[in-house]
Amino acid sequence: MKSPDERRRSDRAHAAILEAASQTVQELGYGKTTIEGIAARAGVGKQTIYRWWSSKGAVVIDALLAGQTETDWPDSGDLGTDLRLVLRATTLEFADERTSATLRALMLDMQDDPALSESVMTRMLGPQLEATKRRLRSAQQAGQVDAAVDLDLAVEVIFGPIYHRWILRTHPFDEAYADALTNLAIRALGPAVAGAVGR
Amino acid sequence: MKSPDERRRSDRAHAAILEAASQTVQELGYGKTTIEGIAARAGVGKQTIYRWWSSKGAVVIDALLAGQTETDWPDSGDLGTDLRLVLRATTLEFADERTSATLRALMLDMQDDPALSESVMTRMLGPQLEATKRRLRSAQQAGQVDAAVDLDLAVEVIFGPIYHRWILRTHPFDEAYADALTNLAIRALGPAVAGAVGR
Repeated sequence: MKSPDERRRSDRAHAAILEAASQTVQELGYGKTTIEGIAARAGVGKQTIYRWWSSKGAVVIDALLAGQTETDWPDSGDLGTDLRLVLRATTLEFADERTSATLRALMLDMQDDPALSESVMTRMLGPQLEATKRRLRSAQQAGQVDAAVDLDLAVEVIFGPIYHRWILRTHPFDEAYADALTNLAIRALGPAVAGAVGR
Repeated sequence: MKSPDERRRSDRAHAAILEAASQTVQELGYGKTTIEGIAARAGVGKQTIYRWWSSKGAVVIDALLAGQTETDWPDSGDLGTDLRLVLRATTLEFADERTSATLRALMLDMQDDPALSESVMTRMLGPQLEATKRRLRSAQQAGQVDAAVDLDLAVEVIFGPIYHRWILRTHPFDEAYADALTNLAIRALGPAVAGAVGR
């Protein structure tokens, strides 16, 4: 068992590493960030980092998560209002060059690093997708989302267009885009309108 | 100027390289494909390949395009019918492990290779997105797509969900998925229904 002093030192090192990881990614970008660089900035040895994290990706995810406010959706009672807020915030994040570069590098590394992919999915993206589904489920109960809509697909209809634009870099992100996407998503997911079938 | 014999030899070498590139990617996957390997299989020197193509990605794109039937959309007069066909074909392509691996490798290489990215966009994806917009424009004229819908966003609403599922590998692709996506996209893009506003 650790003594109180050892635990305090350990907590301090843990926090220093997360802070160093965050600053390093901010300054150098994800690609040029190294475990060595993070260790040097945090004033610890590489082995201290590897005691808690298995890879650069794993530390960076924790650093990103530490800086994040919350994954839960707002719930004003009106899905359209909440969706517009979330999509404005999400597109703002993707429009930010540094955040976008970090996410892009993580997404790339995920494709041939199953452990990192697992880590991103269970710790970062998974909870966001689950939170979205929770909000959609409550909108379904309120009659604002068609009961027959599959919520996994609904999540993709909401965020998929942003991925398409982001990966192919076809067009920039702005608030008008977030709002136009909100409108189309609400039309896609909303309750089937009587008389509209077969039009 | 080339003599007729030289031109024939040159055409044969060009075709042999495309065929070799296609076979090599089929057998080894994109990642293990090399210019050297393609040259050896085609029975030409590396320099012959570099005379026509600047990179592995460029040859592979041409080999993929040579095997493709057409980018143009069907036009039955009913957007829903055509969209269902196209989305079934698209998801079938993404569900195929080898095609998916090749596209994934191209997509990854694009992210830090501007020349390849330009090439994929202008030669492969760009024409597909344009063909989609042409079909949507004709559906707009037929009153099947809301006149106010931005067609760049419409394209993303159609294909973005597939990208989301493909990149995050969250769920498998099947025909039921293609059909469910078709229904939601038609609801998103279809003409605004009188009386449905403000619901």
